[in-house]
Amino acid sequence: MADPNQRLIRFRPVGTVHSPFKTREDIDPRRNFRPNGFSDVRGEIEVDSAYAAGLKDIAGFSHLIVIFAFHRSGSGHLLVKPPFERRRRGVFSTRSPHRPNPIGMTVVRLIGRRGNTLEVSGIDMLEGTPVLDIKPYTSRDSKRGVKRGWMWRSALNR
Amino acid sequence: MADPNQRLIRFRPVGTVHSPFKTREDIDPRRNFRPNGFSDVRGEIEVDSAYAAGLKDIAGFSHLIVIFAFHRSGSGHLLVKPPFERRRRGVFSTRSPHRPNPIGMTVVRLIGRRGNTLEVSGIDMLEGTPVLDIKPYTSRDSKRGVKRGWMWRSALNR
Repeated sequence: MADPNQRLIRFRPVGTVHSPFKTREDIDPRRNFRPNGFSDVRGEIEVDSAYAAGLKDIAGFSHLIVIFAFHRSGSGHLLVKPPFERRRRGVFSTRSPHRPNPIGMTVVRLIGRRGNTLEVSGIDMLEGTPVLDIKPYTSRDSKRGVKRGWMWRSALNR
Repeated sequence: MADPNQRLIRFRPVGTVHSPFKTREDIDPRRNFRPNGFSDVRGEIEVDSAYAAGLKDIAGFSHLIVIFAFHRSGSGHLLVKPPFERRRRGVFSTRSPHRPNPIGMTVVRLIGRRGNTLEVSGIDMLEGTPVLDIKPYTSRDSKRGVKRGWMWRSALNR
């Protein structure tokens, strides 16, 4: 078998995020710090009509996992300097958008569904972000006793 | 600007899962039901040496989000029949591997790091699964008051 790490894996977006954050500056905590985080930020996830049938049964879930592409991120780095941090951190210990594979993951709260559009809160993505997948958030995803490494004293990532 | 939903997005695996589950049958709950789920299942995430520098600082985190490709899944469906369910469900309300974009997400517990290999528990992936990204699990990812839709009475997804 060929080494699976050698091959490229291709995905096609299934939808788009609609967000109040229109530019990278809007969402940069150094320019627009949000002491209470993003949980109250409302937006929409518009699923392409070709995939709308996949939204059946979704209304019963309170939270959704959104997997998306950081479509405006720069090239990937292995060490990144998080906002307000002095030291460079390994990228896999950060949520930086500048990653080897620019994939993002955010858990949003589902407020309602209108056709192929999901109204949600907890939006921390930019307007126009391509959505790769939507999954139901289940009890298995909710962990207790979480240790947050270098982030323990950071106001971000709360 | 071109419609971002039209273009393919390409990723290159950054590592590989080593798992006790060698075949799809090993992990199929209809053949090998695990009443206590996967939290005790140990395995490894081997990061390619080219990306090992990105693991700096990771040891301080108790839980990691692993984003991976369902490399053995079939074609994507919009309606899928989960194990032990009689009704077809919208794929975005399931964790089925047979998705429009076969991307998986599992939260694992980090036991230790040995060079570019992470020893973890909570493995529910197959041996050889290509890893696309590793992220620290933070307080923002741990939700309370989760409503699980059709899954509320399922022994799976706990």
